[in-house]
Amino acid sequence: MSQALAQTLHPLDIATQLVPMDDGRLRGTTSDDYWNMMGPFGGTTAAVLLGAALGSPKQLGDPVALTVNFCAPIAKGDFFVDVKEVRTNRSTQHWSMELSQGDGIAASATAVFAKRRETWNHRPARMPNAPPPATLAPMATEGRNAWLQRYGFRFVEGIPDFEHPRDDDPAGTRSVLWIEDVPARPLDFLSLAALTDIFFVRIFQVRGRMLPAGTVSMTSYFHTDAARLATQGTKPLLGVADARIFTQGYFDQSAELWSAAGHLLATSVQTVYYKD
Amino acid sequence: MSQALAQTLHPLDIATQLVPMDDGRLRGTTSDDYWNMMGPFGGTTAAVLLGAALGSPKQLGDPVALTVNFCAPIAKGDFFVDVKEVRTNRSTQHWSMELSQGDGIAASATAVFAKRRETWNHRPARMPNAPPPATLAPMATEGRNAWLQRYGFRFVEGIPDFEHPRDDDPAGTRSVLWIEDVPARPLDFLSLAALTDIFFVRIFQVRGRMLPAGTVSMTSYFHTDAARLATQGTKPLLGVADARIFTQGYFDQSAELWSAAGHLLATSVQTVYYKD
Repeated sequence: MSQALAQTLHPLDIATQLVPMDDGRLRGTTSDDYWNMMGPFGGTTAAVLLGAALGSPKQLGDPVALTVNFCAPIAKGDFFVDVKEVRTNRSTQHWSMELSQGDGIAASATAVFAKRRETWNHRPARMPNAPPPATLAPMATEGRNAWLQRYGFRFVEGIPDFEHPRDDDPAGTRSVLWIEDVPARPLDFLSLAALTDIFFVRIFQVRGRMLPAGTVSMTSYFHTDAARLATQGTKPLLGVADARIFTQGYFDQSAELWSAAGHLLATSVQTVYYKD
Repeated sequence: MSQALAQTLHPLDIATQLVPMDDGRLRGTTSDDYWNMMGPFGGTTAAVLLGAALGSPKQLGDPVALTVNFCAPIAKGDFFVDVKEVRTNRSTQHWSMELSQGDGIAASATAVFAKRRETWNHRPARMPNAPPPATLAPMATEGRNAWLQRYGFRFVEGIPDFEHPRDDDPAGTRSVLWIEDVPARPLDFLSLAALTDIFFVRIFQVRGRMLPAGTVSMTSYFHTDAARLATQGTKPLLGVADARIFTQGYFDQSAELWSAAGHLLATSVQTVYYKD
């Protein structure tokens, strides 16, 4: 890639770039811009795997469902993605993807695409009340893990405090916050898939401290077609994260992503490992 | 199988029975006992695919997550399951499964297993209040689709009424009900996986009528190890089903399954196609 071109690409587009190999696999490279503590931010892994299917000439419709299983840590450097078109019907399409490095499969995924069209609609869920993002100070991310610096976080409720351990008096599980790509990037399915994973794991919040924890599986549903998604542009999304149960080393986490106009664009669940 | 043996097996165990073939695949047969309108009840498909991994001599730990993608209708008769051990770590294990019939892959799945152990616990979600199951009349299932006759449904809230169309005045999305296997069967991961799919698709309920609709992907998380699960025995579970958005031909549906003792045993989401 020429330097001139690199300068025009958003870091997320660089992090999710895949090069077709002669053997049919796709090659990508981890991005320092989205590095987390011990591997890439999981949201970029989700975006890479979704992008592997989205980039196919056989793509039919838009993503409806994406499940990503985080099988092992991903090391800095190159990785390879195998994409399989599982089944294509008249209006739906099923994909499976595997991300490998030298020592085996590090992540697996399945995706469902569908041709969406206007139907009877009903939207019983309501967007939480929140002050406009411009009235809230963004969380300081300078000097922190690189991936945090790729997003703007403006908390409405459930501001994380990792400095006051409260194992015996757990804090609330819910957070509400405005989120956006930094630098700004017009919303598409790649960035939406990544955004479904940007919520701090709830165990940090309820226990008021960091501890060993990591997502093992995440499922995201998309409630919009590409055309409607494009109308969001670079406006912040309102995110809601919550959890119901922490037991025997695993907890569940759920998320909602609302457009600035009050449409529910994506919902997500994940199951997260934690130690002790 | 001898007739004497068949008589001792529960219909769910027959429906999920898999026979190893010489080529490493597993062969199963659809069950008339769990037949739905146009194919097997999706819960049995989920149980078959989970069972394919659970039955492996390489199994490590208990199921934590299961995603099933319903790619195409499954016809009456034999099917074949390919099981792949994707990755085994010290305390987690990843699987992928595919169910095929003559014309291709009809269902795909991924599962995460994990060795669970006692840790710090926190259970912020609360079981809904419900009168004891014995005080509620079971829904009549005689003469209806076979799979309905394999379960007991005792509604606490959100009783389905498919005879009064209300497209212009949608009913509530939520149902609360006691559910159990018929005949009774001690709870295990197979039956729990099937139970995560027993809730009527919410679109029937909100619109007060049946219409073409079908689950395309379902993800279930299990919040218990096998030992704790076994303590449930044959007692009914309290189920909660809900939905947030119906748009452009797809809606989301969520579910909780609570033990009689008030423990959240499983949570689940699915995305469901609907026509018009």
